[in-house]
Amino acid sequence: RFFRHVHMKTKALGDALMLFFPRPLQDPIRGRPKEIPHNEKLLSLKYESLDYDNIENQLFLEEERRMSPMGFRCLEISRWVICGLIGILTGLIACFIDIMVEKLAGYKYQVIKENIEKFTEVGGLSISLILWAVLNCAFVLVGGIMVAFFEPIAAGSGIPQIKCYLNGVKIPRVVRLKTLVVKVIGVICSVAGGLAVGKEGPMIHSGGVVAAGVSQGRSTSLKRDFKMFEYFRRDTEKRDFVSAGAAAGVSAAFGAPVGGVLFSLEEGASFWNQMLTWRIFFASMISTFTLNFFLSIYHGKPGDLSNPGLINFGRFESGLLGALFNSLNYWLTIFRIRYVHRPCLQVMEALLVAAVTAAVSFTMIYFSNDCQPLGPERNEEYSLQVHPHSKIVTSCLYLGTVGIRFLIKSDVISSFSVSLFCADGEYNSMATAFFNTPERSVRSLFHYQPGSYNPMTLGLFTLTYFFLACWTYGLAVSAGVFIPSLLIGAAWGRLCGILLASFTPTSPIWADPGKYALIGAAAQLGGIVRMTLSLTVIMVEATGNVTYGLPIMLVLMIAKIVGDYFQEGLYDIHIKLQSVPFLHWEAPATSHWLTAREVMSSPVTCFNRIEKVGTIVDVLSNTSTNHNGFPVVVQPAKLCGLILRSQLIVLLKHKVFVELARSRLSQRKLQLKDFRDAYPRFPPIQSIHVSQDERECMMDLTEFMNPTPYTVPQDTSLPRVFKLFRALGLRHLVVADDVNRVIGLVTRKDLARYHLGKHGLEELQLAQT
Amino acid sequence: RFFRHVHMKTKALGDALMLFFPRPLQDPIRGRPKEIPHNEKLLSLKYESLDYDNIENQLFLEEERRMSPMGFRCLEISRWVICGLIGILTGLIACFIDIMVEKLAGYKYQVIKENIEKFTEVGGLSISLILWAVLNCAFVLVGGIMVAFFEPIAAGSGIPQIKCYLNGVKIPRVVRLKTLVVKVIGVICSVAGGLAVGKEGPMIHSGGVVAAGVSQGRSTSLKRDFKMFEYFRRDTEKRDFVSAGAAAGVSAAFGAPVGGVLFSLEEGASFWNQMLTWRIFFASMISTFTLNFFLSIYHGKPGDLSNPGLINFGRFESGLLGALFNSLNYWLTIFRIRYVHRPCLQVMEALLVAAVTAAVSFTMIYFSNDCQPLGPERNEEYSLQVHPHSKIVTSCLYLGTVGIRFLIKSDVISSFSVSLFCADGEYNSMATAFFNTPERSVRSLFHYQPGSYNPMTLGLFTLTYFFLACWTYGLAVSAGVFIPSLLIGAAWGRLCGILLASFTPTSPIWADPGKYALIGAAAQLGGIVRMTLSLTVIMVEATGNVTYGLPIMLVLMIAKIVGDYFQEGLYDIHIKLQSVPFLHWEAPATSHWLTAREVMSSPVTCFNRIEKVGTIVDVLSNTSTNHNGFPVVVQPAKLCGLILRSQLIVLLKHKVFVELARSRLSQRKLQLKDFRDAYPRFPPIQSIHVSQDERECMMDLTEFMNPTPYTVPQDTSLPRVFKLFRALGLRHLVVADDVNRVIGLVTRKDLARYHLGKHGLEELQLAQT
Repeated sequence: RFFRHVHMKTKALGDALMLFFPRPLQDPIRGRPKEIPHNEKLLSLKYESLDYDNIENQLFLEEERRMSPMGFRCLEISRWVICGLIGILTGLIACFIDIMVEKLAGYKYQVIKENIEKFTEVGGLSISLILWAVLNCAFVLVGGIMVAFFEPIAAGSGIPQIKCYLNGVKIPRVVRLKTLVVKVIGVICSVAGGLAVGKEGPMIHSGGVVAAGVSQGRSTSLKRDFKMFEYFRRDTEKRDFVSAGAAAGVSAAFGAPVGGVLFSLEEGASFWNQMLTWRIFFASMISTFTLNFFLSIYHGKPGDLSNPGLINFGRFESGLLGALFNSLNYWLTIFRIRYVHRPCLQVMEALLVAAVTAAVSFTMIYFSNDCQPLGPERNEEYSLQVHPHSKIVTSCLYLGTVGIRFLIKSDVISSFSVSLFCADGEYNSMATAFFNTPERSVRSLFHYQPGSYNPMTLGLFTLTYFFLACWTYGLAVSAGVFIPSLLIGAAWGRLCGILLASFTPTSPIWADPGKYALIGAAAQLGGIVRMTLSLTVIMVEATGNVTYGLPIMLVLMIAKIVGDYFQEGLYDIHIKLQSVPFLHWEAPATSHWLTAREVMSSPVTCFNRIEKVGTIVDVLSNTSTNHNGFPVVVQPAKLCGLILRSQLIVLLKHKVFVELARSRLSQRKLQLKDFRDAYPRFPPIQSIHVSQDERECMMDLTEFMNPTPYTVPQDTSLPRVFKLFRALGLRHLVVADDVNRVIGLVTRKDLARYHLGKHGLEELQLAQT
Repeated sequence: RFFRHVHMKTKALGDALMLFFPRPLQDPIRGRPKEIPHNEKLLSLKYESLDYDNIENQLFLEEERRMSPMGFRCLEISRWVICGLIGILTGLIACFIDIMVEKLAGYKYQVIKENIEKFTEVGGLSISLILWAVLNCAFVLVGGIMVAFFEPIAAGSGIPQIKCYLNGVKIPRVVRLKTLVVKVIGVICSVAGGLAVGKEGPMIHSGGVVAAGVSQGRSTSLKRDFKMFEYFRRDTEKRDFVSAGAAAGVSAAFGAPVGGVLFSLEEGASFWNQMLTWRIFFASMISTFTLNFFLSIYHGKPGDLSNPGLINFGRFESGLLGALFNSLNYWLTIFRIRYVHRPCLQVMEALLVAAVTAAVSFTMIYFSNDCQPLGPERNEEYSLQVHPHSKIVTSCLYLGTVGIRFLIKSDVISSFSVSLFCADGEYNSMATAFFNTPERSVRSLFHYQPGSYNPMTLGLFTLTYFFLACWTYGLAVSAGVFIPSLLIGAAWGRLCGILLASFTPTSPIWADPGKYALIGAAAQLGGIVRMTLSLTVIMVEATGNVTYGLPIMLVLMIAKIVGDYFQEGLYDIHIKLQSVPFLHWEAPATSHWLTAREVMSSPVTCFNRIEKVGTIVDVLSNTSTNHNGFPVVVQPAKLCGLILRSQLIVLLKHKVFVELARSRLSQRKLQLKDFRDAYPRFPPIQSIHVSQDERECMMDLTEFMNPTPYTVPQDTSLPRVFKLFRALGLRHLVVADDVNRVIGLVTRKDLARYHLGKHGLEELQLAQT
């Protein structure tokens, strides 16, 4: 078994170092083999935009005008109801993940404990350890296969994807039911498989998927339509709900409702309004409430709602590393995009990481001699004692460490300390850091008394866990980066605390290294993900202590400033490496010399208000352009509206032709419902059959086009165009001349391709990747 | 003295009931006698809009294009520096207010204590009480005169004004230095004068003024220009800083940096972006830090930075009323607008309130027999004992209660309990509620052990304090409503807790009535001001305990929903009664049938690109129209730009005429700096002399106009126009026809006048009030 892993490692290395020939590569987000850009100086054309602007065509306006004030009130109430549902469901899913991890770990523990008891006397501990190893690798294997083969978008934490979605980029399949299922199973497997990962990021993604599903009142995947919430079947409304779902996810993961709101605000929502804020807040609240309610029932204490979330770090009674992490992960991700693109390779890498994690942990623990006496306050119910004389099992034992971690996790064992390779009545403090779930390790680093950890232990632990976590993030498994970052930060924070205390032994205020661990954890996480406001609130809500709010804010701010000087945040790096046309908060500072004339796409394919069906079909079928929005003009080229590809598809499908309308007087008029039913998976043009006769018919677009698209004059500066586009969440912005003739069209990619580099304004290349 | 007050009361009543004849009324915000609307169905035309949109004319674009990336970085750094300064100064001002109140109270205490000691034996306590009364009325008099005669805008909490400012309405003099001075002195006087007010709202307003001042790098009032931050001399930048200042104010008042950010977000900023959020956050942080730092030095414990704000409620170890409050205050405010409009009347009303407050307090305490034994944990350093046999002093004593309140506040007295009319070793629990500063009363309601208060006491206290606070808010003194609301809520919350505990004596979890007091305080405040997210965070940060976050959120949400059903929030009521054209978050739901054509103002006064000076002067001098923005057209009526009155004024002042430019070749070209120097107090047109010869000259507007104003077609629906206008913070939106000819102009008042009433969409009347 050991050799198989070595073999795998060699193979991956060989892949990495030798196979430099070009070949079709696989895109980790979409999962189809394609040519992938090898650097971040490209902008992909394959991503489409969400349309945050309402299409106020005649049908829509008629519906709105028919609606009574009571109707609007009902809509408002159903928005609140949906947010409540999102909160409840997200809380339940978080609950499910939590319980499943515990159950699986408990089962494993049972099996392995019996096994150990059987073999301890006869000296065959290696068998037990191999059993553990097999169990753990099996988990990672299941998770890896699910992700790599069934739904590659479910890999990672999902936060970059949700961030893109909220920015207005349509990431395919990111909010589908299948993604949710793979994500949930995947994260259970990877946490149960002992990888250096957290389950918080996936919970946030799950919240987003739940929101997108619930708000539509149907499941396209399951082909079930509950005929509810049909009004919300458009990008505008759906995106609002997804931001509520993401907030609910944060709330469930960290017990931080306010932090959830701020997360959505800081990371995602570019288009914010008060009502939306309240709804998101409501969803967050319900989510924490539900989670705590069901967890309290599960723990047999119904009604005890004071458990604030899954990783309440407990109570306190009494940026440079982040940038390094991001840089390393950046190179690793580029490497992965280039060479580790086949699903089977991805699964193998995941298994390799699992094995190496175990090997490193074991080596560290084995050679550590940091044995601390067990205090009376740590009433160990169970401590695994492997005596030094059994060194014969070394070659296999490392595989077992992955198992031991979950042994400790299980409910039966409430202790943090593990006495591996130490005498009775002592515990191995290196094992305390390595042999726990990351959540528990973080907590012990925060709370153990001064002197519980040797500085050497902490230093080595920080170093190794740093590289392990960095390697793990980006594997083809569902995995979050929050908890590993906190763990690294807590370790070096505590290390700093110990060193400082040894220099200034007279000041008793700073004698508690646990405080340093908390601050270090905040700094490390801040340095990696670069959030400030929301992270402060999340940390405060998770620790349940407001006192440390100010120092946490301070270190987060410093971590962000220092980190930004060297490297972007981890999520931004991953977004950039996927060449996503992400719109930042403002146009690049030095872009005032660019005008709409320079940035727009031109010439523009326009349609006449009454257009020939053949022309429309030909334009839509042209795969080389693949436009999604078409200005509608009256001769001579005067703008009178804008129509989307999706609308034209529906019109063609229902054959809304002028001639047919004349011949069949009783024909059912096309309604808004028809567009909503087709949303969001509009059929491709190839699936719609248009006969040669029909090609000669005419289509009247007047009723369906948006008659008042936003326009800008051609001299408008780029920042001004950007501001309009971003503030209103547009998908298409028409550039018109001084007599209102269409001369260009600005879309997301035209704005996203300018960015401020080291040498001033740079332009990204556009590529069909 | 007593009779003088009675006389004053009669006079005010007489004013109120008899003087129904029409006469010029005074506007409490602007302070000039004017016809004031008597209901909220009017929209004032006197308020102008702030321009959140950059005027991207040629001068501006040239400047931006000349600027290097390093220049933009310097700008960014100076934004951070300014935010730091705002935080520091706001913290210092809050500190000053706090210390001054304590000093004044301490001084009064000293004087009165000596007086009492002198007269206690000889039985002349009435003299002491009269002394107190004089001192207290003197404070209110000073504060009232300052506000009523010097700067009426400094009245009240200032939050409605800041809210309007952040919404984009230019409230005259709201961010001037004079306002700040009057506000600070006023709030010190009214708190020291024993009114039922808090000092938190004024701190928020002060933060806004500080921000507006610091960010401009000069003081127009003091005529000092530091030649700094000239880039920020425009509405866009200034408003961003004011929102940072408001957040810093909240942060200083409550020790709640995150709450401050959310306050700015929830109450004010309609145009939000991430960088701004961070800067505001930074300012909030620095503010709390500064406050705590200097307070800790003041208290002789430098470095002890764990004191989270002025009203840290301490720690917990273990919606309808709001609407009623608002309704009563609504009627009271209407009454005040109609009848209490002269400064001297306003001062008298303030004195009357001070006297009535004292009288009611005294009566309540005098007839209360809720004497509780002093526990050993309350080590009273001083307790004022007025024995029942000295009832002869009754007629004067009530004036003294105002003084006693501040006696208790002083640092020397650290106890909460007062033994008025009780035996030695006992304290009067009614006096504990009435005879403390509101902050201290709130804290004692939260923290006193069960059984400290009699339900009867609490009920009577709630009832009387409710009416007193309601009457006090809106007086012509600087005063906040936060703390009185918390106090009312805490009292009835505790009352509910006691009653519930008596019904369910078996459940020990809910036995602590202090918890109910906290929840009640949150509910009452939420019912009055209708904030949810920010208030939760503020309460949590102020109490320093996250555990109660969830129940607080829940009651705030319920208080908001219940309250909104009956009446708007207090601040919104006051904004509406001032007929301010306030833009809400969205257009009224049922307004889709309105289009730009119906809402726009038309015909529009346009200028030609090269226009005769005489024409411009005539248009600007026309007081009947008083337009502020003028589309610039080329014949035939084709839109080519937009120019503001303020710009034209500067052009006229500098005589930028085509003929002069030709004759004086070496003439200095007008620069952006000239516009910035004139900002924000542009001279009126009347002050600019234009000779008859000059009237015949021509002005070339090309360089100065905004060449790319936002436009909409005339068929655009109102919600769409509203969204564009609100999201971009526009001041003028041009309506153009299909060949780009100007046909109308939409401004703030055109959008603000539609609102959803009980019978569908209603249109407010426009009035020059």
